[in-house]
Parts: sequence; structure tokens; C-alpha cells
Amino acid sequence: MADYYSLNKQELEKEFNDVSREYEHYRSMHLSLDMSRGKPSSDSMDVSQKMFDSVGNHIGFKNIDGIDCRNYGGLDGLVELKNLFAEILELKPEQIIVGGNSSLNMMFDTVAQAMTHGMGGEPWCKQEGLKFLCPVPGYDRHFAITEYFGLELIPVPSNEEGPDMDVVEELVKDEKVKGIWCVPKYSNPEGITYSDNVVKRMARLKPAAGDFRIFWDNAYVIHDLYDESDKLLNIYTECVKAGNPDLPIIFTSTSKITFPGAGVAAEAASPNNVALLKGRMKYQTIGPDKLNQLRHARIFKNAADVRAHMKKHADILRPKFEAVLEAFENQLGGTNIARWTKPRGGYFISLYVPNGCAKRVEELCANAGMILTSAGATYPYGVDPNDSNLRIAPSYPTIDELEKASSVLCLAVKYAVLEKLLSNL
Amino acid sequence: MADYYSLNKQELEKEFNDVSREYEHYRSMHLSLDMSRGKPSSDSMDVSQKMFDSVGNHIGFKNIDGIDCRNYGGLDGLVELKNLFAEILELKPEQIIVGGNSSLNMMFDTVAQAMTHGMGGEPWCKQEGLKFLCPVPGYDRHFAITEYFGLELIPVPSNEEGPDMDVVEELVKDEKVKGIWCVPKYSNPEGITYSDNVVKRMARLKPAAGDFRIFWDNAYVIHDLYDESDKLLNIYTECVKAGNPDLPIIFTSTSKITFPGAGVAAEAASPNNVALLKGRMKYQTIGPDKLNQLRHARIFKNAADVRAHMKKHADILRPKFEAVLEAFENQLGGTNIARWTKPRGGYFISLYVPNGCAKRVEELCANAGMILTSAGATYPYGVDPNDSNLRIAPSYPTIDELEKASSVLCLAVKYAVLEKLLSNL
Repeated sequence: MADYYSLNKQELEKEFNDVSREYEHYRSMHLSLDMSRGKPSSDSMDVSQKMFDSVGNHIGFKNIDGIDCRNYGGLDGLVELKNLFAEILELKPEQIIVGGNSSLNMMFDTVAQAMTHGMGGEPWCKQEGLKFLCPVPGYDRHFAITEYFGLELIPVPSNEEGPDMDVVEELVKDEKVKGIWCVPKYSNPEGITYSDNVVKRMARLKPAAGDFRIFWDNAYVIHDLYDESDKLLNIYTECVKAGNPDLPIIFTSTSKITFPGAGVAAEAASPNNVALLKGRMKYQTIGPDKLNQLRHARIFKNAADVRAHMKKHADILRPKFEAVLEAFENQLGGTNIARWTKPRGGYFISLYVPNGCAKRVEELCANAGMILTSAGATYPYGVDPNDSNLRIAPSYPTIDELEKASSVLCLAVKYAVLEKLLSNL
Repeated sequence: MADYYSLNKQELEKEFNDVSREYEHYRSMHLSLDMSRGKPSSDSMDVSQKMFDSVGNHIGFKNIDGIDCRNYGGLDGLVELKNLFAEILELKPEQIIVGGNSSLNMMFDTVAQAMTHGMGGEPWCKQEGLKFLCPVPGYDRHFAITEYFGLELIPVPSNEEGPDMDVVEELVKDEKVKGIWCVPKYSNPEGITYSDNVVKRMARLKPAAGDFRIFWDNAYVIHDLYDESDKLLNIYTECVKAGNPDLPIIFTSTSKITFPGAGVAAEAASPNNVALLKGRMKYQTIGPDKLNQLRHARIFKNAADVRAHMKKHADILRPKFEAVLEAFENQLGGTNIARWTKPRGGYFISLYVPNGCAKRVEELCANAGMILTSAGATYPYGVDPNDSNLRIAPSYPTIDELEKASSVLCLAVKYAVLEKLLSNL
């Protein structure tokens, strides 16, 4: 396709007419499509249906320790799941706290703990002007937690290796900077995996704040689309080597392994941090839902079981990602008005359109019945200074819907850009 | 039995010899008994086994709204459970927030919210010297939450009608006093139900602190041992009448209806408070475990279903309570060294021994292989100033174990008191 920037006025007008007509054609279809959230489809959840039969009247409800999982107790989770998450995260079982159905909740609670009781130092709520680093684009719900607690959100640019570590190393010299949000593997929304160099530099950080913490949300640790997985260095091992064992707090969950609403979340850290976190938990709860943990323990004996399970997810998700990427290639390739990431795992694709066009693309999509993640949501305070990034979530729609949705999206991108080019003439 | 206080030295010595011999007899049995926590027995949990078959591959996982309960979403719970808890608590469904497996967690989070964001006023963590009222004896985990957050715990004496409202009305004139813990029905550990007069005076409180809150833990709202239930006035209705709709925050759960570790908790309040609470929740989680909520919704269509279910629990628990009360009557009646409550519901009996004897009774029981709730645990900071109250939890042991345990306990009471009487001669 022609580079839009090489077209003259007449050519641009003709292209706009063609694009408008095609866009109106889709609009007349009264579509109802949603690519806004990383929500699995019904098919994806069906992969885990054996969960429903793994605990019950005929097969009991005791774990390998003989604990009756219906009753109270067990603050930090069943031993089977500690072992499982330890294997997946390449940590020791005693580093793992197994929780309820939401890793976001564990992250929120960890920041809440820092606010009222500190992370080994003075409570954050007693200090003024605290800041938190937010690699952009990133996960809106991460940013929202630290915004809710009144921390100033500092955007950090990212590249294909992860956050720009020159910038991070400079920013952590400020003792008001208390932490950084990271999705290190198949990142949300870029789908990139941090390079060894980024992980090592992250582990070697010497923040001015002694209670600076890396919130390492390894949400997609085992969520590969292809047989060959992206390789992510073990942040904890690197931190130990660098003499910084207390730096990272690691999160993951089975939300996209079993069920998003009824999975199991886990938090992992150094012995010091684990003691600190449990010190709060023992006041907060008598224990997590052990029956749901047991459902997981019974269908996943080890990480290999989870990997085999994830291949079934990949078989459903891979064609969806490929349908979107193929549409981008076919419909936007050569136009020079968009670039996009090509993730090998995770749940998202990032699409970049010319500065000042993302919100308009979102609006045009919405007018054609297609919901995108709100443009800007991937930046602190919901404001993308370039108005350029769009997060694409291909997981929920069917392939047929995705083909339509991708066409609407590509047309909306062309429409928005042509509109702008023409108005600037 | 003879009044111990009427015995002369010789009679006391003889009684001590008899009691010691009998105590040693039990000690030689190497018992292992636990009456320390309000933990249901296996039998009690078996009552809810149909929960396991209420959601699954053959009967689906959608609620009446058609929501796929496996997936993300639904911040405040399924409509079926809002309706169910509304009926049980005599409130409107829109007042109900349905959560995860722990009402304690909801209480903790509500205090945490008050700390960092306030309850409509200035965040509590920005204020010094805050206090919280703790009717005694009470629930240790309640007291521990407010202690964890650094509030000063102020004990409030209770009587057979509930907290001493003369004292409460006086204490709330202090603007540093931010709230009160209440277990209004079949209270923990007294087993008493607040009188209409206490509920009305509670509702009419005019605290100096505008953000004073009544934490109304209606844990045993429907947990009767007998056909005739204790009647508790509706705190919310009374608060509305008194022009204080925002005063109470109400909690309950199905922990002792279905499974302690895998029940469903709920929080209820005025529209203002609900908006405030949801304002935090939307940052904290994407939603609770809806599959577990659906399991509950499918076996309990309405409060009548729950009441029928609770009769099965009562049939298991009532003989346990009666076994303990009968042992107290037979073995301590007439001695004038103990008094105890006779609850018609809930999970606990309170036993009072002469001042300065409770810890010794606990120790003597422990030496004979029987674990009691730590003496003092029912008071702020774990200190019973009279060292007199013991919380008895009859739910977990079998009847046979309870008979042994009650005998050990009665002997320990006699032993401790005789020891003291003899040493004072």
C-alpha cells in the first residue's frame, strides 16, 4: 500500500473517500465488538472445565497434608500450590504466599501495607510527595492503585528491551521514589519481554529510598503463544547476586490459566518481605479459599502440567493474535501511519498511530460499534502525551469477529490520519 | 455441690485431694482436645456438601443475569446473593456488597480504607490519638484489627443486654473515638443478643466524631440453636429513624452456614457508605470469586432455604452446647466458683471463674491436653484485667470429646480455685 505521507491532496481525498465508504459500510452493520480488556473467551475457559470435577463429594476435599480444605486456617495457602508457584516462578516454596482470586488485590494490599505500616521503613502515609515509576505504556490498573494512594506517577519510557534503564537509574536517586511497576514478560500492553540487560540493571538499582520496591507482576510467566517461549531472567536471583534480595515483590496468578474470576493468585519475595507481608495478613484474614486452591492443586501436579495446559490456550489464542496481526499487515502495511508489536505470548498487542490520532481512532471505532481500551489508559492519569498508543486485546472475540474488528480498526486508523493530513493541507 | 466459700480448711484440703486425683486421672489419658476456636466440625460441614454439585460442567456456570461466572467482572457480587443477604439482613439489595470468603477481610479493609482515605472525613492515619470502643468480652480478631492500625482500644463493659450504653454514650463525646465493634446477635463470646433498648440507644448515638462508625458484625444473624430465635432489632432501620443512616456498617458471611474457608462474605451500609466502600474496591480488585457465589446462589434461593439449612446445623450443634452446659451444671453448680452464659445460638459460651484464676485454668487444661482460647484473648491487648473470662467453643469436638473436655475444664476450675483458697488461708 502507498505511504500516506507521499500522497498529494487529490490522492489523499480519493483515499479518504474510499476509506469513508468502507467505514460506513461497517458502521451500517451495527456491530457489537469488544477488544477493550484482556478477557478470555468462553472457549478459553472451557479448557479448564476439569476444575469443576477435581474437588467434591466423591473425591474428597483434603490436601496432601490432610487438611480439610473446607474449614478455617492456612494463612498463606496449601503446600501443593506453594510448590507449584515456586516451580513456575523459579523460587523456593517458603517464598510464596498463595492468596485468593486476584493478584491485583495482593498488589493493592501490598501498597496499602506500605502506606500504613511501611515496607521496613516509615509508613508511606506519613511522608509527603512520594512518587512511583510507571513504565509506559503500561497496565492501567497498576497505575490506578498508586494514584489511589496519592503517589505521584512518573512515566518512564520503554523500548523493545523494557523500561529505559538510563532513566530509571537516574530517577531512583530521588528518595521520594518508592517503587516501579513492571510486567516483565509479554508486557501489558506491549507484549515484549524484558532483556537480560534490563533485568540485571533493575536488580542492581541502588535507590535512595531504602524501602524502594520493584512490583514485578509476572502475570504472563507461562503464557506463551508459541512452542518457543521468551526467556526472562529470574529477578530474585539477580537481586540476590546484586545484594538486593528485598528489592522485588513478585506477583502472578492463574487468572489466565484457569478462570479469570476464580483463579488463584500468588505473591513471592525475600524472607524479610514475606515476614513483613504475613505480618499484615494475619490480621486481615483467617485464610484464603483453600477449596479453590485444592481444585488447582489436583489438576496441576507440577509446572509441566500447567505448560501442557497452556498449549491448549495457545491453540485458541494464537490464531486470534495472528488474525489481528495479519489484518494490520494487509491493511496498514506500507502506509507508514502505524506500527505495532508482535508478541509471542501474553494478552495484548500495542498499536501506535500518528501523534494526536489515538483518541480519534477510539471514537471512530466506538461509532462503528467496537469498544477499544480507552486511548491514554496505558499512561499515568489516563493521558498519553502523544495520543498515539492503543491497546488491542484479541482474546475475547471469535476469529470471525476479530477479522471484522481489525478491519474496522484499520479503517478507523486510516480515516483519522487522512482527516488530519487533509486538514493540515 | 457445696459452696466452696463455705468450706473450712480441712474440707478444702479434702476437696483438693479429690479434685487433684481426678484431674491426674484425665491427665494420664493423654487427651488431645481443642475448644479454642469457633471452628465447625466435619459433620457440620458435611451439611453443605451439595455445594460441590451446584456448579459445574453439566449444570453450567451462568447466573440469572446470564453472567459467565468464570470470567472477570462484577465488582460487588451476583444479584442472587445481594438479594439473599438483603433478605437475611432485612436491607435493600443495593445496600449489599458481596465479597470473597472472609467478612474479617472486609472489616479489615474497611478500617484500612478509613486509615488512608477516611470515612467521609480526614484520613485516620493523618490524625493522632484515635480510639476505638471494644465491648468486653469480645472477639479477639476484631480488637486486633484496630490495634494493628494503631488505634487505642477502649474496653466497654457489657451486661446481659449488650454493651453498657451509659458508658458508650459518654465515651463517644470524645471526638478521638472513631467507632465501636459489635457482635449484636449471639455475641462472641457471650452468646447474648443485644436488647431493643441497646440497639435503639446505639442508633441514637451522637458521636463527636462525624465519621464515627458502628462495626456491626452480624456473624450469627441466622445461627439459632432452637426453633425460637433471639430477636435483634434492625440497626439500619433504627439509625435511619434516628437520622443517623451512615452510622452502621454491617457485616455477615456464610462461613458457618456453608464452609468456613470457602463461604461468601457480605458488607452492607447506607448509600453514602456503599459508594465510599466501592470507591476503594474498584481499585482493589476486578471482582470476587463469582463461581463460589453461584454455588451459594444455587443452593439457597431465599432466606427460608438458609433457615431450613441452619436447622441441620442446629441439630448438630445444640447437643454439643447442651453437653457442655450440662457438665457445668452438674460439676460446677452450687460451688459458687463459676458462672456461665446459656446461649440460644452462635458459636460460644462464656465461662467466668473467680478473679485471678482464668490463666491458671487455661494452663491446667493445657497440661491435660486440652486447648482453650487463651485467657484474656477476649479483651483488648489480650489482657483481661480480672483474669476471669474463658471463651468456650463447643463446635469442633465430638460429644464424647466434649464430655471429657468439660470434665477436664470443670476440674481445672475447681483445682485453680482450691489452690488459691488454700494459699490464702
